Amino acid sequence: MTDALKKGLEGVLVAESALSEIDGDAGRLIYRGYDIEDLAHKASYEEVLYLLWNGDLPTSEELESFADTMQSERHIGDNVLDTLAALADSDEHPMAALRTGVSLLSAAEPESDADPTDRDATRRMGRRIVAKIPTILAAYDRLRRDEEPLEPRKDLSHAGNFLYMLTGEEPSETAEETFDMALILHADHGLNASTFTSMVVSSTQADLYSAVTGGIGALSGPLHGGANQDVMNTLLEIDDSEKDSLQWVKDTIDAGGRIPGWGHRVYNVTDPRAKILRTKLEDLTEVTDDERWLNYTSTIEGYLVDEMGLPDKDIAPNVDYYSGSVYYKLGIPVDMYTSIFAMSRAGGWVAHVLEYSEDNRLIRPRGRYIGTEDRQYVPIDER
Amino acid sequence: MTDALKKGLEGVLVAESALSEIDGDAGRLIYRGYDIEDLAHKASYEEVLYLLWNGDLPTSEELESFADTMQSERHIGDNVLDTLAALADSDEHPMAALRTGVSLLSAAEPESDADPTDRDATRRMGRRIVAKIPTILAAYDRLRRDEEPLEPRKDLSHAGNFLYMLTGEEPSETAEETFDMALILHADHGLNASTFTSMVVSSTQADLYSAVTGGIGALSGPLHGGANQDVMNTLLEIDDSEKDSLQWVKDTIDAGGRIPGWGHRVYNVTDPRAKILRTKLEDLTEVTDDERWLNYTSTIEGYLVDEMGLPDKDIAPNVDYYSGSVYYKLGIPVDMYTSIFAMSRAGGWVAHVLEYSEDNRLIRPRGRYIGTEDRQYVPIDER
Repeated sequence: MTDALKKGLEGVLVAESALSEIDGDAGRLIYRGYDIEDLAHKASYEEVLYLLWNGDLPTSEELESFADTMQSERHIGDNVLDTLAALADSDEHPMAALRTGVSLLSAAEPESDADPTDRDATRRMGRRIVAKIPTILAAYDRLRRDEEPLEPRKDLSHAGNFLYMLTGEEPSETAEETFDMALILHADHGLNASTFTSMVVSSTQADLYSAVTGGIGALSGPLHGGANQDVMNTLLEIDDSEKDSLQWVKDTIDAGGRIPGWGHRVYNVTDPRAKILRTKLEDLTEVTDDERWLNYTSTIEGYLVDEMGLPDKDIAPNVDYYSGSVYYKLGIPVDMYTSIFAMSRAGGWVAHVLEYSEDNRLIRPRGRYIGTEDRQYVPIDER
Repeated sequence: MTDALKKGLEGVLVAESALSEIDGDAGRLIYRGYDIEDLAHKASYEEVLYLLWNGDLPTSEELESFADTMQSERHIGDNVLDTLAALADSDEHPMAALRTGVSLLSAAEPESDADPTDRDATRRMGRRIVAKIPTILAAYDRLRRDEEPLEPRKDLSHAGNFLYMLTGEEPSETAEETFDMALILHADHGLNASTFTSMVVSSTQADLYSAVTGGIGALSGPLHGGANQDVMNTLLEIDDSEKDSLQWVKDTIDAGGRIPGWGHRVYNVTDPRAKILRTKLEDLTEVTDDERWLNYTSTIEGYLVDEMGLPDKDIAPNVDYYSGSVYYKLGIPVDMYTSIFAMSRAGGWVAHVLEYSEDNRLIRPRGRYIGTEDRQYVPIDER
């Protein structure tokens, strides 16, 4: 026990984990030993979930069985849809709708009586939750547009099915591939605040629905999950302005403005996920014939690199800098970007809960009382 | 930065707080300098909320204004009731229903656009959430009993109104007083896992609905909030058995069984809250003419104290040991005890969120990667 205050717990080692490794100086991200570039380019999100939850990449048979079961678990019940419809009428934020939607799912969990230490049951619950999150989100967006939610399709991938349920159209191969890649890139990232929230919740042996609901709540905070939305809003602002984009950037910086999507607490160089998403933004730009977003991000990057001397050791483009315009080109509404992050990261939350529960210990830190001592209670009419 | 693993964060000082102080050796609990015994006997739950959220006890005028506003905020909308009805049909656990119910409330929050750093707005949101939790819980219990939920009454206290909404009858003075006391005793208790969860969630500047939803999730875990239910189930088991209660205890201990409600991670002597609730159990026993639960708890305590040498420094009755039978005598269903805990502790969650946000820092600990390094991706058909 030490008396040093560890506010924010920065640097405090709370767990050992075989899930993801971040090398902030080299700009590398690893899931269970595999470089994120390999996984993003060669694997599917389903394959990465299997890897994170089981430790090894699946064989063809294992993957087929896992993905088939997950496909069959995409459906959400009418009670969830009814509640989402009421939330859509109140114009609720998609992250709050997702928080409520996932919390509701526990009522339909077939293994809700499972022992909290039964890790196989927890893994199956995780599969059910992750399978249903895209259905909740797509249904919610359609309901608020006064369109009927679509039943999930069993013949599409996790990524492809979400884009289909959202837009009503089967996505192009480039779109599906890009979205799948974005899901892989966001699936895990050490003990960030939402992952840690899930771990704290489940350290009480609360069920996975509580842990994931907690994670969604934490991710909804602007200090955690909201940056890609800020980036897109900046690009939209440039697009709306009468100015040339280079001029807009210069004026904004000169006026003391901040460009979102640059800098990260753990990366000192360009975020490896940013590099991968940049190439996908280029691919999407090619097929859609709309060069605006790529041009704006390139202009900003060029200006910051050439004129301001960035990226330097403190500030470089992070994953949010590119994911915003990628999602925009995929037809995802800007206010849903954080919930897309949740859709992917839910896989990481489940993985950390599974891992921590192997040798669980209730997470309960210490506080130091600094308030007044020994106050005498005075009856209310004498105050 | 140190390389020592702090699993469970035991002893790690994460925050300074002027809210509650626990002296585990002296068996004392303090809220903002006031002894819990004074507050339990002399103040109301509303007064304690005011104290925790504002720093000082209210004047008569301040308390009247605070309590009046809170009374006017007890109502929950039809969309919440509809969702609760659907959950009741699925026989959902009350803690899961409460988690979903509170998550739903954000859609009706009049200040949902408030800046996350606006502490006055957060305090008002806290008041609204705490005002509505009893309404959610009472409505849920009535719905699952196929009875109509009752509108909250504005002429009753927070404690009295809950008992009225639950049972349909105005509670006796002793019942109201006892329940008010139980709410005061459970309102805050340092950085326990659910309070810490609320702090981690809100450290991302997520809204209070996310923080409280997270707290409920954490409290639902059997390692955190479930013990008073276990105690009551033990007493019910004694009552159902053919045995004399002393014989039952002897046989259970001899067979290696554990008596729940004894021992606490932070108290080395009798939990001060247990002492207070014991006297209330005596009061309730007197007015209701049913001595069973008091007899059973006394028999167990007598046996453990006289025969086993307890309480000693490691094990003594904790608050859960008495709250179970107190709630039972108040007519609260056994599977709702943890949600009664949440009803009270929500006040503490809000208090800690308010306090931590004064000088907020994102809570993000460190993990150490211990997985395999540099695995080569092998195409799936070659695995």
